[in-house]
Amino acid sequence: MNQLRQWSSQIVEHRAFQPTIITLIVLNAIIVGLESYRGLYDTYGNWFLRIDTIILTIFALEIVIKLIAARPTTNFFKDGWNVFDFLIVASSFIFMGSPFVTVLRILRVIRVFRTISMIPSLKKIVNALIMTLPSLGTILILLSIMFYVFSVMGTFLFRDVAPEYFGNLQLTLLSLFQIITLESWASNIMRPIQEEFWWSWIYFVTFILSGVFIVLNLFVGVIVNNFEKIEKMENDELPEGDDLQEEVYLLRQEIKDLKDAVKEK
Amino acid sequence: MNQLRQWSSQIVEHRAFQPTIITLIVLNAIIVGLESYRGLYDTYGNWFLRIDTIILTIFALEIVIKLIAARPTTNFFKDGWNVFDFLIVASSFIFMGSPFVTVLRILRVIRVFRTISMIPSLKKIVNALIMTLPSLGTILILLSIMFYVFSVMGTFLFRDVAPEYFGNLQLTLLSLFQIITLESWASNIMRPIQEEFWWSWIYFVTFILSGVFIVLNLFVGVIVNNFEKIEKMENDELPEGDDLQEEVYLLRQEIKDLKDAVKEK
Amino acid sequence: MNQLRQWSSQIVEHRAFQPTIITLIVLNAIIVGLESYRGLYDTYGNWFLRIDTIILTIFALEIVIKLIAARPTTNFFKDGWNVFDFLIVASSFIFMGSPFVTVLRILRVIRVFRTISMIPSLKKIVNALIMTLPSLGTILILLSIMFYVFSVMGTFLFRDVAPEYFGNLQLTLLSLFQIITLESWASNIMRPIQEEFWWSWIYFVTFILSGVFIVLNLFVGVIVNNFEKIEKMENDELPEGDDLQEEVYLLRQEIKDLKDAVKEK
Amino acid sequence: MNQLRQWSSQIVEHRAFQPTIITLIVLNAIIVGLESYRGLYDTYGNWFLRIDTIILTIFALEIVIKLIAARPTTNFFKDGWNVFDFLIVASSFIFMGSPFVTVLRILRVIRVFRTISMIPSLKKIVNALIMTLPSLGTILILLSIMFYVFSVMGTFLFRDVAPEYFGNLQLTLLSLFQIITLESWASNIMRPIQEEFWWSWIYFVTFILSGVFIVLNLFVGVIVNNFEKIEKMENDELPEGDDLQEEVYLLRQEIKDLKDAVKEK
Repeated sequence: MNQLRQWSSQIVEHRAFQPTIITLIVLNAIIVGLESYRGLYDTYGNWFLRIDTIILTIFALEIVIKLIAARPTTNFFKDGWNVFDFLIVASSFIFMGSPFVTVLRILRVIRVFRTISMIPSLKKIVNALIMTLPSLGTILILLSIMFYVFSVMGTFLFRDVAPEYFGNLQLTLLSLFQIITLESWASNIMRPIQEEFWWSWIYFVTFILSGVFIVLNLFVGVIVNNFEKIEKMENDELPEGDDLQEEVYLLRQEIKDLKDAVKEK
Repeated sequence: MNQLRQWSSQIVEHRAFQPTIITLIVLNAIIVGLESYRGLYDTYGNWFLRIDTIILTIFALEIVIKLIAARPTTNFFKDGWNVFDFLIVASSFIFMGSPFVTVLRILRVIRVFRTISMIPSLKKIVNALIMTLPSLGTILILLSIMFYVFSVMGTFLFRDVAPEYFGNLQLTLLSLFQIITLESWASNIMRPIQEEFWWSWIYFVTFILSGVFIVLNLFVGVIVNNFEKIEKMENDELPEGDDLQEEVYLLRQEIKDLKDAVKEK
Repeated sequence: MNQLRQWSSQIVEHRAFQPTIITLIVLNAIIVGLESYRGLYDTYGNWFLRIDTIILTIFALEIVIKLIAARPTTNFFKDGWNVFDFLIVASSFIFMGSPFVTVLRILRVIRVFRTISMIPSLKKIVNALIMTLPSLGTILILLSIMFYVFSVMGTFLFRDVAPEYFGNLQLTLLSLFQIITLESWASNIMRPIQEEFWWSWIYFVTFILSGVFIVLNLFVGVIVNNFEKIEKMENDELPEGDDLQEEVYLLRQEIKDLKDAVKEK
Repeated sequence: MNQLRQWSSQIVEHRAFQPTIITLIVLNAIIVGLESYRGLYDTYGNWFLRIDTIILTIFALEIVIKLIAARPTTNFFKDGWNVFDFLIVASSFIFMGSPFVTVLRILRVIRVFRTISMIPSLKKIVNALIMTLPSLGTILILLSIMFYVFSVMGTFLFRDVAPEYFGNLQLTLLSLFQIITLESWASNIMRPIQEEFWWSWIYFVTFILSGVFIVLNLFVGVIVNNFEKIEKMENDELPEGDDLQEEVYLLRQEIKDLKDAVKEK
């Protein structure tokens, strides 16, 4: 057992291991891309399936080896990206042979995201992007409250006039998302309602102004966040202020010694 | 009377008080959401109304208790959020039993905003958002002047060609708001007018360029504002420069003493 | 003559002078707004005209007095805002009684912009906005070159397929402006052309990517510009670094004196 | 040969050389602009062609002279802008007399971009813009992966319902680009699909949220990048911290000397 673990570690740390997996992911991406062309799929469909089965088997093997190589096996699941890899591959096996061809295909496409977990610089940037989310927590809660209130209000007010946009809570939420992206908010959504209720512009203009203002602050939050991180990093590299303070402190000690020396005489 | 006040204070400061109110607000939010589905409203409408009446009564009680607990009663109204709570609950009672069902419903939905006044971190962020507004004052006045001038001008120029967009001052203001969000400004608004007056593009391009430029600066204002606040906070925490200056000052005193000691000998 | 000048100065510097003019500008704004309603114009049109004539006369007087009050008369024209005021009022007189009613009306509306020249804080912000333009000079030239090249190219390529968008150089320029605001660029402009020339997406995607990238950098330029100004202002207020350096320098002199004192003994 | 090189250098460095070339580029720009008007082209077409041939000849001469003037001839091609100039002029000669009139015209228009390589400040800004691209490398790779995955997925899911938008991989990529610019994403693309598959909003909202978030971070990256460059430049100009540190260090040496002097006595 112990020898198996050692053997696994050697494979995982081999310098050809990562490039091989990346090559397979790229191959997987190309095949899934080609498959999206009907003509190619009809002629070479079987070949695509065979290559895909081989790739999937190698991915499964890779995860098994990584699982064995991890000192306490639970360590493997501590990295979110390993969990992601595991789920993708496991679910491909679960749905194998099932009639939901679309689900299988989507799983095959999502496997392309494994590139991120294999290339350290990409992993780092995605981790950084995800890390900015918690700091935006409160502003996202605020945005949700605003969306919910305007959504219920919009449903009550406009469900009879514009049922395709405000027919029920879900539809209204989707319409509000469309409005906040400013897409056809006036020409398609507000103006037809405006013909019935002249006061409806208050609802839309209030929503856009407050929504855009909050989103803007969310945006500013991301920028400020990034700058603080960079500044922190720079401060760790160049702690000049503290160095200077220490230098001056040492100077003072020196002078105290000197004073004692003078007084002793 | 004094005992009543003490008793109220105890309730308000009880650690179960705030969570209870938040739970009720969430319950209120859920009910108002369910009510927006016609099917549910027709079957359970009465139940919704009963629960709502209970919640409203508790909210009223809550405010009365808070009013009593406040040392000078006027103190209660010094916090804008308390005034907001009071107005929402009071107006719910005023419109109770009135035929304006929509008004009542909207008041019930707006009550969801009370979450903000109950959760300190949300309250803080909304206060911060509102605080950035005054610093944007002059640029908002500038934007209003620009909107007014272009609005009057647009009404004079295009009211006969495009009455649905420039028919009167209010319509033009709304259209200008739509134009500044860049929604269908060319395809729906400018191009049809362009067919009549070839020079109309001057009006639209000027408005968009100057409008976007001012809004951009407003945006920059918000960012700069945020950074300054953060910097101020950081400077308060780490007043290293001043510390250093004091240290150097002490050093000088030390040396003066030393000089005197040497001279005295 | 000299007494007249003194008398003018006293009027201009009187504390009721500026508020009076601002009141008149606001009155002018209200009248021009009311005039935009057809019904009101038909009934009270004559009154509006009379009030307008009075306001214009006072504005003319105001400028004459300011002209007299200015020490060398040419000083008056050194401030761009004075030139703006002068041109607006002068042209109102030139077009008086002319058949171009629209021109007169537009001049009357533009007079509302005089608020900016009368309120110092607005004047300051507009000056600041205008000042950022020169620093954006080179990037604006770059943008113009890009617009011109894509405009000529677009006219050559698409004038036969989409004459309403690319019929001639001016039309193409306007369409490119519409495209850079991302308004209906795909649904109305690219997709119909795409049906004829499959390669047309290269033109549009290239233009949008490079255009948005340049505009983004323009935007970043404005932000950076603002920050630099603020930092410069802050550095002027708190030149702590230099203070400290001087303090340390004085310290060194002190110690040199001390050394000499010790050695002399 | 050596004399020819000297003679070429003198021409290139002559103060009339650059203005002459810029004038010719502007002339080229004007002619190509005029040519885009059908009426003018039909009447003066021959004249345009003659002037163009003269300009092209001078441009070719210019490049030959510059090639001779460059000390090792290969030095000429080290500057990307020289390569750009060379390719533009060379390809104009290659396609000369070919039946592809459009290609020739586009080459003639692209020559206007030579203004950038002739005006140093423009060259500098474009170089700076291009320099920011590598630092955005990883985030651009991430964006490409996301585009690819959503593109394959979209083709699988919606090719039967909306063949004009999701018919094949290329069409889907173009549609995703349109969606990320938020142009008609809901009204034209999502809502018709929504009628068939109610769950399709998940695809669109996920794509927009993650896409906009990544693009936002790209944007922030550009800003941060710019600030760092500026800060680096400023730090090089004002290395006050180090000066101070040196000053304090000298101070300490001085005091050590003093202590020795005291002890010696």
